[in-house]
Amino acid sequence: MKKFFSPQSIAIIGASTKSESIGGILVNNLLANNYHGKIYPVNPKYNQIKDLVCYPAAKDIKKEIDLCLIATPAPTVPGILADCATLKNPIKNFIIISAGFSETGPEGKKLEQQIADLAKKYSLRIIGPNCLGIINTQNGLNASFAPNNFLSGPIGLIAQSGAFAAALIDLGTRENLGFSCLATIGNKTVLDETDFLTYFANDPKTKVLGLYLENIKRGPEFLSVLQKICQKKPVIIIKAGTTAKTQAAIITHTGAMAGDEEVAESLITDCGAICAHSLSEFLGYLKIFSYFKAPVNDTTILITNAGGPGIIAADLVAKSSVLNLYEFSAAEKFHLQKQSPEASSFGNPLDLRGDADHTRYETVIKELSKNKKIGALIVLATAQVQTNIPAIWRTLFAAKKYCPFPIMPVILSDTIASLLTPDIPLANFDDPLYAVQSLEKYYLWQNKKNININFGKSAKIAATRQKKNNQYLTQVKNRQRSILLYSEASHLAASYNLNILPAQRLNSLDPQTLTYPTVLKIDSDQILHKNKEGGVILNLKNSEQLSIAAKTLQKKFAKTDLIVQPQSEPGLELIIGLKKDNNFGSVIMLALGGIATEIFNTKIFFSPLGNTRYFENKIQTSPLGQLLDKQGIKLQTVIENIQKVSALANENPTVKELDLNPIIFYPDQPPIIVDIKVILE
Amino acid sequence: MKKFFSPQSIAIIGASTKSESIGGILVNNLLANNYHGKIYPVNPKYNQIKDLVCYPAAKDIKKEIDLCLIATPAPTVPGILADCATLKNPIKNFIIISAGFSETGPEGKKLEQQIADLAKKYSLRIIGPNCLGIINTQNGLNASFAPNNFLSGPIGLIAQSGAFAAALIDLGTRENLGFSCLATIGNKTVLDETDFLTYFANDPKTKVLGLYLENIKRGPEFLSVLQKICQKKPVIIIKAGTTAKTQAAIITHTGAMAGDEEVAESLITDCGAICAHSLSEFLGYLKIFSYFKAPVNDTTILITNAGGPGIIAADLVAKSSVLNLYEFSAAEKFHLQKQSPEASSFGNPLDLRGDADHTRYETVIKELSKNKKIGALIVLATAQVQTNIPAIWRTLFAAKKYCPFPIMPVILSDTIASLLTPDIPLANFDDPLYAVQSLEKYYLWQNKKNININFGKSAKIAATRQKKNNQYLTQVKNRQRSILLYSEASHLAASYNLNILPAQRLNSLDPQTLTYPTVLKIDSDQILHKNKEGGVILNLKNSEQLSIAAKTLQKKFAKTDLIVQPQSEPGLELIIGLKKDNNFGSVIMLALGGIATEIFNTKIFFSPLGNTRYFENKIQTSPLGQLLDKQGIKLQTVIENIQKVSALANENPTVKELDLNPIIFYPDQPPIIVDIKVILE
Repeated sequence: MKKFFSPQSIAIIGASTKSESIGGILVNNLLANNYHGKIYPVNPKYNQIKDLVCYPAAKDIKKEIDLCLIATPAPTVPGILADCATLKNPIKNFIIISAGFSETGPEGKKLEQQIADLAKKYSLRIIGPNCLGIINTQNGLNASFAPNNFLSGPIGLIAQSGAFAAALIDLGTRENLGFSCLATIGNKTVLDETDFLTYFANDPKTKVLGLYLENIKRGPEFLSVLQKICQKKPVIIIKAGTTAKTQAAIITHTGAMAGDEEVAESLITDCGAICAHSLSEFLGYLKIFSYFKAPVNDTTILITNAGGPGIIAADLVAKSSVLNLYEFSAAEKFHLQKQSPEASSFGNPLDLRGDADHTRYETVIKELSKNKKIGALIVLATAQVQTNIPAIWRTLFAAKKYCPFPIMPVILSDTIASLLTPDIPLANFDDPLYAVQSLEKYYLWQNKKNININFGKSAKIAATRQKKNNQYLTQVKNRQRSILLYSEASHLAASYNLNILPAQRLNSLDPQTLTYPTVLKIDSDQILHKNKEGGVILNLKNSEQLSIAAKTLQKKFAKTDLIVQPQSEPGLELIIGLKKDNNFGSVIMLALGGIATEIFNTKIFFSPLGNTRYFENKIQTSPLGQLLDKQGIKLQTVIENIQKVSALANENPTVKELDLNPIIFYPDQPPIIVDIKVILE
Repeated sequence: MKKFFSPQSIAIIGASTKSESIGGILVNNLLANNYHGKIYPVNPKYNQIKDLVCYPAAKDIKKEIDLCLIATPAPTVPGILADCATLKNPIKNFIIISAGFSETGPEGKKLEQQIADLAKKYSLRIIGPNCLGIINTQNGLNASFAPNNFLSGPIGLIAQSGAFAAALIDLGTRENLGFSCLATIGNKTVLDETDFLTYFANDPKTKVLGLYLENIKRGPEFLSVLQKICQKKPVIIIKAGTTAKTQAAIITHTGAMAGDEEVAESLITDCGAICAHSLSEFLGYLKIFSYFKAPVNDTTILITNAGGPGIIAADLVAKSSVLNLYEFSAAEKFHLQKQSPEASSFGNPLDLRGDADHTRYETVIKELSKNKKIGALIVLATAQVQTNIPAIWRTLFAAKKYCPFPIMPVILSDTIASLLTPDIPLANFDDPLYAVQSLEKYYLWQNKKNININFGKSAKIAATRQKKNNQYLTQVKNRQRSILLYSEASHLAASYNLNILPAQRLNSLDPQTLTYPTVLKIDSDQILHKNKEGGVILNLKNSEQLSIAAKTLQKKFAKTDLIVQPQSEPGLELIIGLKKDNNFGSVIMLALGGIATEIFNTKIFFSPLGNTRYFENKIQTSPLGQLLDKQGIKLQTVIENIQKVSALANENPTVKELDLNPIIFYPDQPPIIVDIKVILE
């Protein structure tokens, strides 16, 4: 990867003298930032571009080439790759800027497959196609057709959308946010987010990572790398393309399939990364990790020259589930009042009054900086008649040096725009919301680093069981069925000691073993939603009621098997489920069952590779955990069942979906699974 | 009120030659904006300020004074008011800029009371004290010490914090937001938000209202006025000071008590107003109502030159519970492609590609503007190498004229700052989030206007019942108790036909009428949380179990009465409650009961003055409505019980809190109230 970000020599295939064409912009961008490597434009049309010799083809360069940019029409790309890969000094590293691949349809998809095949054959490392290129601000390398107005700084950006990167560069200039490296990864035929994540983990200039992703190519590897890097560096992720409708947009955009946002957010957060839900959030998180110290603890002080905005900010801290408002002791108030008698209130917010100048800010900040109990300081300022915003800005910057906790400026004034320049390396939050939210995330990230809830490196597999189940499921599949019957699903589940409520077929019923009340239901590999379709009759109290019910169902569902189960005792109805996610493979879900399922939409997703501590931690911190607690149900019992389903998921990759719904938990007896559905791929 | 916003003559008591003092700024501000009324500075120290004659005292002016600004130290204010009010031509209208009243403590509170008394005695209309003043951009009146850089426009601003108004003026300049009038209301000793709301309702230049409030002085009147104005003009409210901790800040800020945010938000929204939860939201709503047409329907189209940001925006619309992504038909796509062959995708977002110039934007917008099925258009642009942001900006402005639906710009570029000037009356959303959120709120506001869920003008009172209950509660109070015993609370509730589960005292138990299982609990006016303190024993199956339980409770709660109730059948446990809110007086709550109450925190607040349609509408659109539906419980039954509690609230203002918890609802039998608590003021 070093050859990409610090190449000694670059060839540009499709270079151009036209400064508005992509081939022209690429040459200009490489020349514009004092990049010191060798630059070889390639285009048979020209002998010279700017002051550079232009070569007819890559083979004519006859020098070692660290990196090759390709900006020619899509159909020419496979040929160019093959040529470059078979030179005497073969080229191994490519950035394919060209569009016109899988994002455009079947034809493009074929071309992209050719690229993938060539990469495999010749061990090529390729970024793109359909990308903007990469930038390394540390050595002036702009190997992209992005604008040249980027600032240098601590952010490593990985973007699946080139336009997103371009917008970030532009907004970065406005917000005074600088980048170490930017990588746009396009269709990620060869190199993907996981490769760049790995690289940025070890890049010393990159202190914080920002990712824009629409899908995740190698989900499990991504999580594994992410988990490691989050122990050292904060990673902010904006995951777009969440909904079915938007997925259509993604297919036409980079030809990728989008995954389920909720699962992605859950697993990404498990790894210690931070999900941003809007551009404003994303910028806020990049700001705090770029410029500010870590909060020393969760107590926060607000100082302000403006009552209203101070109260808005204090509301946010007071409502936060992470931060707390610091409360001054009487002695502290007395002392502060002596230092700054002009301030009107020594509560929180500490109101410096509308006529506060920068020295009043400074006096109070200096005083507070000595207080070891303070975790962070949020400083608000509005431009009132006597306010000198530039002087306050410089005061806040100076305070960074002597103050042990972060000082976050919330300057609510138009004046700030002209102050946000690299001369003063500091960022401003122009809404208290994003200052507080960012502080929360910094605090959580810092403390999460210490929680070790590693995913298992590889799942434990019980080989004999796996083999048996595999044979069993293959038999079902051979019968051209993907939905298992109740008896089949029960058979599978039983091999994991899942406690499925027994069922007898109505037509082979042993009346001796039958107890009332009982439940009659259909058992079908066609009708998935039995309940909804009226295929379940509950609470049958005697044989008469049972036979009436049987006639009803037989009439309604001709040729469908009927099964009889004992009626279960009421308890806490939960769902444990398993789903193959587009991005991450098998994931496990724990949710509230019964009638409230859809209304409260309370669910937790797990990786089936998680350890016990991971399951414990996720349930305990959720509403479901509180519910278990209130009902006196042992957390351990729930976890055991999740682990059984995890084992089933890990050993049976052909299971596409599984539902234990409901699994009823009790305070004083083992849980019972009343119904099970299994769907194969 | 017209005398405040369009005075013919103004006296400034405490005027000064010092341009940095408040008295000096007031004079300068009045002179700075071509305000044509007469200006009379008053200060015994000067003969002249600027070119104006300065008077020693108000009595020396000897002209009619429409408005008098006071900026002298707090202790002098009552005397000045008395002097002015007793002139031959008495002054009636004042703005008291001076601080130092109830916001500072008991001394200030006394001074403020003097002002209130004088206002009553002499029928004075007073804004403030402790405010910034008012501005009317229509006639150049800046009767405030706010900066002079405000833009003129359609927004009427009412702010309880002067600093909030100052910040809004400043940010308004940045965001190209203009104001018709601004009123800062300070401690609102006499005139308050309801007065200004009434005035702005009829001010033709005010098209949208923005309010910053920390408390609401005359809650019921405020709601009544708000409901009327929201039928005509959108009202955006930011309600700060939500939490106990922040309330402390409010007391020191304007000496007002803050109310409960959830209640405020609920009732304010019932009136058709829009609550903003952050400064960014507030600005977003002001933008859309200032500059944009109403959405024609709920379908939205996104066009973009940037894939990633387009997908982020599409995700927001797809996830919206209000808006929908428009789907182009095959014929529409074909037609669009003919018009603009360069675009890469005719999905939603419609991707114009990174090299789109303003004419490509124009072509597509013109084409879309003919489509009658489109409700709104969100236009994204990022600055890529070939992008001309100013040209796109002008194109979007021009499109306002011919396009029947709103076109909302989301320009993600630093360049936009220089384009946001009054020359082009248009606003930009710099995060797709706020464009989508604002569009949602506009759509909802427009459609809510048609729903008539009026609060009753005055509650129906059953006079005989009211009198009886009043006597009964007075007796309890005379016994120095504010918590009613179960029997007393039941007695009160029974007069509203609330179906309370009967209870017998254990020591006067009739064993003949007792059925098992039964429940034993304490009945105390001291212990409010029986359950938590272990004062309830459920499911006693026979007399033996009952007598063991009785011994247990008697030991634990000596001298406390015990009562016996039949065990109720399981059903849907809800809470119906009543609380005296700080801002709005009595409010009614419907919430989920049982163990899930605090976990899911599902609750609805109602005004007890609402009509049946109001209760219906609020429940039906909530999770509780879905729950009732799923359980087969009649909405009407729930509403009847809410109406009974409403009647109780309206007729018994001394009831501070009431809890029916739980009230169990069933599909096929009347609800039962298992426990009741009543607390008097």
